[in-house]
Amino acid sequence: MNTIPTATETLMDPDGLALGRRIMALLRHAATFSSGDRGVTRLFLSPEHRAVADWLIERMTDAGLVAALDDAGNVVGRLRSARHNAKTLIVGSHQDTVRQGGAFDGILGVILPLACLEDLTRRGLELPFNVELVAFGDEEGCRFQQTLTGSKALAGTFDPTALQASDAEGITMEHALRDFGMSPERIPALARPAEQVIAFLEVHIEQGPVLESAGLPVGVVTAISGIERHLIQVTGKAGHAGTTPMLVRRDALTGAAELVVALETRCRRTEGLVGVVGDLSVSPGAVNVIPESVAFPIEVRAPSDVVRAEACNDIFAAFRDIAGERRLDLKVEKTYESPSTACSDWVMDLLDRAVSEVGVTPLRLPSGAGHDGMAMKALCDIGMLFVRCKDGLSHHPDEDITAEDAAVAAMVLRHFLEALSKDSRIAGTA
Amino acid sequence: MNTIPTATETLMDPDGLALGRRIMALLRHAATFSSGDRGVTRLFLSPEHRAVADWLIERMTDAGLVAALDDAGNVVGRLRSARHNAKTLIVGSHQDTVRQGGAFDGILGVILPLACLEDLTRRGLELPFNVELVAFGDEEGCRFQQTLTGSKALAGTFDPTALQASDAEGITMEHALRDFGMSPERIPALARPAEQVIAFLEVHIEQGPVLESAGLPVGVVTAISGIERHLIQVTGKAGHAGTTPMLVRRDALTGAAELVVALETRCRRTEGLVGVVGDLSVSPGAVNVIPESVAFPIEVRAPSDVVRAEACNDIFAAFRDIAGERRLDLKVEKTYESPSTACSDWVMDLLDRAVSEVGVTPLRLPSGAGHDGMAMKALCDIGMLFVRCKDGLSHHPDEDITAEDAAVAAMVLRHFLEALSKDSRIAGTA
Repeated sequence: MNTIPTATETLMDPDGLALGRRIMALLRHAATFSSGDRGVTRLFLSPEHRAVADWLIERMTDAGLVAALDDAGNVVGRLRSARHNAKTLIVGSHQDTVRQGGAFDGILGVILPLACLEDLTRRGLELPFNVELVAFGDEEGCRFQQTLTGSKALAGTFDPTALQASDAEGITMEHALRDFGMSPERIPALARPAEQVIAFLEVHIEQGPVLESAGLPVGVVTAISGIERHLIQVTGKAGHAGTTPMLVRRDALTGAAELVVALETRCRRTEGLVGVVGDLSVSPGAVNVIPESVAFPIEVRAPSDVVRAEACNDIFAAFRDIAGERRLDLKVEKTYESPSTACSDWVMDLLDRAVSEVGVTPLRLPSGAGHDGMAMKALCDIGMLFVRCKDGLSHHPDEDITAEDAAVAAMVLRHFLEALSKDSRIAGTA
Repeated sequence: MNTIPTATETLMDPDGLALGRRIMALLRHAATFSSGDRGVTRLFLSPEHRAVADWLIERMTDAGLVAALDDAGNVVGRLRSARHNAKTLIVGSHQDTVRQGGAFDGILGVILPLACLEDLTRRGLELPFNVELVAFGDEEGCRFQQTLTGSKALAGTFDPTALQASDAEGITMEHALRDFGMSPERIPALARPAEQVIAFLEVHIEQGPVLESAGLPVGVVTAISGIERHLIQVTGKAGHAGTTPMLVRRDALTGAAELVVALETRCRRTEGLVGVVGDLSVSPGAVNVIPESVAFPIEVRAPSDVVRAEACNDIFAAFRDIAGERRLDLKVEKTYESPSTACSDWVMDLLDRAVSEVGVTPLRLPSGAGHDGMAMKALCDIGMLFVRCKDGLSHHPDEDITAEDAAVAAMVLRHFLEALSKDSRIAGTA
């Protein structure tokens, strides 16, 4: 494996570009397993899930993997190492999409490693560790409003009460799994033994504009940002907008507007920290009535939980000051919180090195969106490689990447596998 | 009429207080002509309108007026002066309410002068000018979305196309007028000859908190504020709220929030100027999506059209600056404009003097809300006397005034009639 080309070589080399084009062709085919006309819609345990699973199993088998669906609806392809007591690297991502999503979010992290392993086998190369290539059945959670089902199963953290969640038609996840031919009661048995797992590695489109604006095809993820959401309620006093002088008003909307700006100002101050007010409702909401109350959700994310906590402290202090000055009542209710998930230093280091080796400047960036690594972290060390996507767009029919970037990412993965082959962490435990 | 008591005397004097109580009793009775359980609902040409009209005609007749409904649904009571070629003072307000409104907005300006004229007749006093006491059928415009119908009829500015406006049940104003026994084709004939009208005077609750916070029972209106409304559309770029760094965002809501605050800041700078954003809508409106676009109406009012124009110039300049800095598209569309209506100096002067004579500090204030004077100004000089209302509240079941304030306002009206009796403006034209 010492003939792995650099990015420039890859893009100059018909073989390298061919790998990129192979990935794009497989992705295009995967995108045909979709319901509806617009973009890609492939929900958990749907006929499209069945079709893509059958196709993936064929492709994995052709590539020399032993592949099958498991009882959580994951397609798992195993490439066993000849080495005695070999440990396992898990690579993969999710097969499911949001409704009217794109052809890359999730499935890229299945197809790209598949093409790499296919290429490896074709070259007759062997790895000193096992590889499990997983297409998680459910990560987005669009059908049952339960996310990370597949990765929780492997991590041994799947909560069986989730089986009773139902979709829009009232079908429970349990019922849907059985209809799919699965035995949900066997999901707990899917938990992997931690001591036999080296790490979980996911390749995913960035879903943001950082790589594009940096002019880089790939980046190494530092952490999946923690997230908290709060519902904010600001209450003042309604009044006739023509007859109430400005200085006696307790206008809930002008107050809320200052809160919205204060949130933005604080988040702008710290790199990696993001915050948004995505919606806002005004009551009573008439053109000539001073707003009595305003409600809006805030969402704050940061790769570090400490940074996020400090930021929220500052934000709520600013909220209280503004509300106090304006004689407005303020109510803050936490509606959601999920801690950050750090990627492991050694995985990031190996990825960085692989990126450098293909001649690309290594860039580290947090992931503001959630990923299967959040669940897999309970089982093992994790790492993620982001691939530049067009306009930073995801969850949208126009989601796109280039064949060139796919080729570069595939080369990074090959370099990573090469480096890992020489790493002490792959040594068996027995 | 040189025995008119001051406010203090009125409130110490059983007779003065009795007049206040008489007004409150009549108002309470008028409030029984209402549909629904909550507050007072008395729409134009409704059975409740018919009932209050019949009752008002009886009360006016008892007070010595010649009263009847006219073809626009106004109750008009005439108190003729014995003086040859006497000119006419029109006093009054509207009988109609908003849905679930209060017992004072409008009808106070009918009942209070009625009680005064009743008291005048009881005392055997005569005026050297005619008085027309009008209960306009429609000012609020809640039923047909056409406002000031009654006063436009008297002013000669009624537009017959309004007859084709229909209510929620599809009944046209023309049809409703005919059902009420009126002949809408005769509305143009209701126009008063301008040369025979001295002025139009309206007594109305303030609908705002100025008199209450000044500790004064009454105030003299300077002008009915002009008003303009615009629809503002701010467009940025949607994006994943977790993956898009703060500094590359084009968030339509944080931009809109700055516009909302800029409007407030500018309006606070000029006394009498008011502005509001009464509603706001965010698209796509998801907790984790950066807002793509925000739409909101703005409303600006000022007693001076010049002040309003200057303010709006400043506001839109600030809007453009903010949008430019934030790389947001800004669209401003004027949806409504109505110029201000000045009260006549001589009427204000006479009212001020009358207020002083009852021992109350004269206070002048603009009316931020619209009134029949806006239409009557096309016919004659106008003036308005505001009466303090509880919590500045109107268009609400809890709308309230005190009997004491009613008594003081009645004394002011008596002083005004007294002063007008000696004024050269009442001299007949013939």
